[in-house]
Amino acid sequence: MTVAVVGLGLIGGSLCKAVKRFTTHTVLGLDANPEVTRSALADCAIDRAIEPQALSEADLSIICLYPEPTIEFIRANAANFRAGSLVTDVCGVKGTVVSAAEPLLRERGVAFIGAHPMAGREFSGYAYTSAELFSGASFIMTPSADASPQDVAFLESFALTLGFGRVVMTTPSEHDRAIAFTSQLAHVVSNAYIKSPTLVNESGFSAGSFLDLTRVAKLNEDMWSSLFLMNRDALTFELETIIGHLNEYLAAIRDGDGAELKALLRDGRVLKEKSLGL
Amino acid sequence: MTVAVVGLGLIGGSLCKAVKRFTTHTVLGLDANPEVTRSALADCAIDRAIEPQALSEADLSIICLYPEPTIEFIRANAANFRAGSLVTDVCGVKGTVVSAAEPLLRERGVAFIGAHPMAGREFSGYAYTSAELFSGASFIMTPSADASPQDVAFLESFALTLGFGRVVMTTPSEHDRAIAFTSQLAHVVSNAYIKSPTLVNESGFSAGSFLDLTRVAKLNEDMWSSLFLMNRDALTFELETIIGHLNEYLAAIRDGDGAELKALLRDGRVLKEKSLGL
Repeated sequence: MTVAVVGLGLIGGSLCKAVKRFTTHTVLGLDANPEVTRSALADCAIDRAIEPQALSEADLSIICLYPEPTIEFIRANAANFRAGSLVTDVCGVKGTVVSAAEPLLRERGVAFIGAHPMAGREFSGYAYTSAELFSGASFIMTPSADASPQDVAFLESFALTLGFGRVVMTTPSEHDRAIAFTSQLAHVVSNAYIKSPTLVNESGFSAGSFLDLTRVAKLNEDMWSSLFLMNRDALTFELETIIGHLNEYLAAIRDGDGAELKALLRDGRVLKEKSLGL
Repeated sequence: MTVAVVGLGLIGGSLCKAVKRFTTHTVLGLDANPEVTRSALADCAIDRAIEPQALSEADLSIICLYPEPTIEFIRANAANFRAGSLVTDVCGVKGTVVSAAEPLLRERGVAFIGAHPMAGREFSGYAYTSAELFSGASFIMTPSADASPQDVAFLESFALTLGFGRVVMTTPSEHDRAIAFTSQLAHVVSNAYIKSPTLVNESGFSAGSFLDLTRVAKLNEDMWSSLFLMNRDALTFELETIIGHLNEYLAAIRDGDGAELKALLRDGRVLKEKSLGL
């Protein structure tokens, strides 16, 4: 089979390496930066560097760009994908991307299934790619109700072959609501946490909890601002929710209400224990 | 030398084990629970279980109780400490504890130096104690301006002997301001984070960022509510600060203001990189 990967950054480049490592498929690579395709060729992460016209050779095309460029690329290159082939993406938001990409491709007989490989690092770019990046991670798929069962089954087994630990089937909107809480909110809160003026005095006082809370503050603001704005409603809900809860603790602490504060902390502790299965 | 440890929970019991492991001092242990002292004797974590009267034998007494009980214990037992001996504590707030404890002891010729061993686990109690608990951790000391230099130097070298990685000298109020940010705020935010109703759908979507943000949500609400209320002003400031920042992101996301959102995220990313020394 022939797999085309568009965009050889951290995710796209790692997918190329994983396909070469764990399968016998041919990998075609496309990147706007010729140095990146040269590196990928030198690493044998791709078999050939291609122009968009050659996407017609691919049985599976994986678009590994940021959300807006993903939609733009599919719009500009819809005619290049072969009828009967399958296209997927890797965006961290699914509603906007799937609703834009799917109709563009369907009218040409090309199938589209949205996907979100839940893997990443604090670094981006081809230089940090690894065939092991997806080891044990969740591969989330958002097939439409009328997606071909063969396409769904193929993409699922393809993901497991690359080392993903589990495949989660969901809808674009369910995905976006869940991800707003489990990933996007974490990045906003972490980025906000670090902004206290007390940061200048933290040296020697930073225990594990501080490092945990601020680890993902080091984010790529171009990518995340785009993801956040494409998931505005769900993320707004999560931010309002945590601000509401923080205000409850603040009121209890300001009022010196120990019983209320203890009850608030106990509620959170119990939820965490349940989520750990304790 | 003879070291008395009052309260053989996670910190006190681990201190006993570390003193026995890394020094030749005699360790006297005092705990309200006779089963705990029996376990500590069986483990050779203490040389003798004592009643409060025997604190007079100690050259160094370490009170390892929660903040309020620490103050109460010192008040009730001030007459038991020997004039010329040194008393210290392990509380996570220093202002309230030091200002209460120090005058009570000073009038009897007993020196007091507040301390905060920055180590802990998600579990509490003697069962989880370890001689290695303090390995590489910060040992924070808040000696008064008129503390004896010999006492300060002794406590510092004692901490390093037990495996602490560094000793930080500060004032009680500086300590409390820093700790409100680096530790207390982390516990409140983590405990608030887990409370979203979206939690029920997180299965399969929880990446590392979610686990980082919610790790310390599993806290001991009795201890932390007491610590929070004893550091009300500093923690109130930190909560107001993060809520203020979260509201900035919320407004930018709600308004779809990509430029503002990107600037907010960039500011946080730059601060995190600076704090990592990048």
